[in-house]
Amino acid sequence: MGHTIIEKIIGKNIGREVKPGDIVTVNVDRVMIHDIFIPFVKEKFEEMGFTKIWDPDKAVLIYDHLVPASQVDDTRHFRIGNEFVEEYGMKNIHRSDGICHQLMTEAGYVKPGDIAFGTDSHTTTYGCVGAFSSGIGYTEMASVLGTGKMWVKVPQTIKVTVNGKLPENVRSKDIILRLIGDLGADGATYQALEFTGSTIDEMSVASRMTMSNMAIEAGAKCALFTPDEKTAEYCNVELTDELKDLKGDADAVYAREITYNAEDLVPVIACPSQVDNIKPVTELAGTAVDQVFIGSCTNGRLEDLQCAAAILKGKKVAPFVKLIVTPASRKIYKEALADGTLETLVEAGAIVTHPGCGLCCGRTGGILTDGEVVVATNNRNFLGRMGTSKVKIFLASPATAAASAIAGKIVEA
Amino acid sequence: MGHTIIEKIIGKNIGREVKPGDIVTVNVDRVMIHDIFIPFVKEKFEEMGFTKIWDPDKAVLIYDHLVPASQVDDTRHFRIGNEFVEEYGMKNIHRSDGICHQLMTEAGYVKPGDIAFGTDSHTTTYGCVGAFSSGIGYTEMASVLGTGKMWVKVPQTIKVTVNGKLPENVRSKDIILRLIGDLGADGATYQALEFTGSTIDEMSVASRMTMSNMAIEAGAKCALFTPDEKTAEYCNVELTDELKDLKGDADAVYAREITYNAEDLVPVIACPSQVDNIKPVTELAGTAVDQVFIGSCTNGRLEDLQCAAAILKGKKVAPFVKLIVTPASRKIYKEALADGTLETLVEAGAIVTHPGCGLCCGRTGGILTDGEVVVATNNRNFLGRMGTSKVKIFLASPATAAASAIAGKIVEA
Repeated sequence: MGHTIIEKIIGKNIGREVKPGDIVTVNVDRVMIHDIFIPFVKEKFEEMGFTKIWDPDKAVLIYDHLVPASQVDDTRHFRIGNEFVEEYGMKNIHRSDGICHQLMTEAGYVKPGDIAFGTDSHTTTYGCVGAFSSGIGYTEMASVLGTGKMWVKVPQTIKVTVNGKLPENVRSKDIILRLIGDLGADGATYQALEFTGSTIDEMSVASRMTMSNMAIEAGAKCALFTPDEKTAEYCNVELTDELKDLKGDADAVYAREITYNAEDLVPVIACPSQVDNIKPVTELAGTAVDQVFIGSCTNGRLEDLQCAAAILKGKKVAPFVKLIVTPASRKIYKEALADGTLETLVEAGAIVTHPGCGLCCGRTGGILTDGEVVVATNNRNFLGRMGTSKVKIFLASPATAAASAIAGKIVEA
Repeated sequence: MGHTIIEKIIGKNIGREVKPGDIVTVNVDRVMIHDIFIPFVKEKFEEMGFTKIWDPDKAVLIYDHLVPASQVDDTRHFRIGNEFVEEYGMKNIHRSDGICHQLMTEAGYVKPGDIAFGTDSHTTTYGCVGAFSSGIGYTEMASVLGTGKMWVKVPQTIKVTVNGKLPENVRSKDIILRLIGDLGADGATYQALEFTGSTIDEMSVASRMTMSNMAIEAGAKCALFTPDEKTAEYCNVELTDELKDLKGDADAVYAREITYNAEDLVPVIACPSQVDNIKPVTELAGTAVDQVFIGSCTNGRLEDLQCAAAILKGKKVAPFVKLIVTPASRKIYKEALADGTLETLVEAGAIVTHPGCGLCCGRTGGILTDGEVVVATNNRNFLGRMGTSKVKIFLASPATAAASAIAGKIVEA
């Protein structure tokens, strides 16, 4: 019988065939811990009695949620992180290079076929390059740091096929929002999503990343894309037959199969305050907007900023609207600086922040208050996430966000 | 008998000669209100029974302290500001263009010889172009908005002469810090500072701005520079005989005269937690640094960023140090973007924020905690200003700041 991608990755890792429901112990290829959880991981790690990290080179510490610090307690996390790497001989630390989920593949820490865990729910992101990655809690992370092992129940797989050419104003963000709407916020709980079809084949790794990033919003354990030439180039690896085989077999068994025709898709929005409350942008057209946010590990990549810049070029953000732009990493920031994208955005009136999690997780950089409306490209519109519980967060693509910033109200790009 | 600059400006404004100690009513040429005080000004203005602003074009509203918003109450200030301009027909509003004191001369609101007031202590800044400008409270501002008038006691003047060529690593920041150290934090209370000498003549308007900005740290009511060709170019005005005459007469009476030889000056630092606690950088060399801040209305201009970039080019910020860079305005941000300055800074590891007051006033963008040390180019090192009361703030020039960021400790540039 054939296998799905997740079954192949886990099977290869442990050296035997697996099927959904099997509980197995995998060898971890890489772990990521971000600034918010570093103090808790360190405390638990020491409480468990570990005196060394199984492989210090396999751990990556990233300061992103609290960079730059907006509260007096924030820098304490950095100091504990600095102590942690010094005491245990870790070298992979990023103190202001961008958002963890961007850096893990961008900086080459996670490769196709790898198994990686991180102390953040959006760790599903690395599935964009065909890696099995998922979020875990800080206690579990402490244990992985000590042992290099992690138990996993092999997930069932939902196969999502998208075929055809996307309309000009529809982006991968619209596909994943639509899927989450169709599945529901708990529709893929502890299942793997597997994406395939000609639309997916045509998609950049950056666009795939948006989709794997948001898989957790339907409850998915992971979200997987078959490595191709684009993946190989992005990851700087050879596209071996083994990697090419990281696809669902024709006779693999799926829990469910969903198919979309790209031509039928339209720009959509996740309405307050549930990620699965999906409506076409046209249904919401005219809704007045106070702020627009383009950025985050979901949509802060160069193609996202370029998409926004193409729409904003020669135009101005509506006078009352604040447009906050946050590139996902320092590398992207530099690329956007070099190719004129930042200049176009700033000229149009954007407020460009340093790469980090700031506004997405409600830490800083554009906090909202009662009655305000924001169109945002990030991944969650939960109550109170970007300010008070009376802020209305609409999640959309960078194209919809940029067009709405100019109009001062929700509009289709 | 001759006159000082401030006597000439006030005398011309009211149409008769004045002397120190005279209490007069001046016609206000321009007022500035920033986001923090907008709600209070509006409330007082309406409480006073005013129904219209004396001249809506003479008021400038600037959102800077709270941009981008870092707390849930911040955007309420913006909404009240938006209502205020709409209700009373004001048009001069800047929602994310930079720091008020930079914008007031940069955007042409204040010209040589003008009298301007603002709801911020560092309103003394506009003296860099030969304007009399000073900070007032929000109640007084409400009254000025209604009447266009303001009472002033004509200040005495302290004449400060600086002659000669500054050493390479000494900047105007070092001069004003040295002066504040020599005068003491209350040494110029309610007096005008008047700067003259060949060093001042050679200085850019930007460098003069650093000095007029910090005059309030010695208690000065204002700080005045005679308009010259550079001022005329910066302000886009003709250098008339009247403007050239905005200098202290040979027989003017001064409360005090202080003279420096530029060659004798050295890079200095204001030590925690008083602006007048001035020491040579060499005395503090080796002090470990956690963060460096280059920016603010004191030292966030293009020449400041360029100075830092020249020092940081091809080098890296010390691993444990966070270098925060905040241009003073959107215009400066764009210039620094266009000429490669931002690229150099980001390449070296800087965290570049959107122009605003953020870190300088402890709102956001690099807040510090107990035991941490920051070298900062802004104007105040008061207890608790950039985080907890146990943060040590050392004020220095951009050159000293950049060199210290690389070394990870205080060093002379």
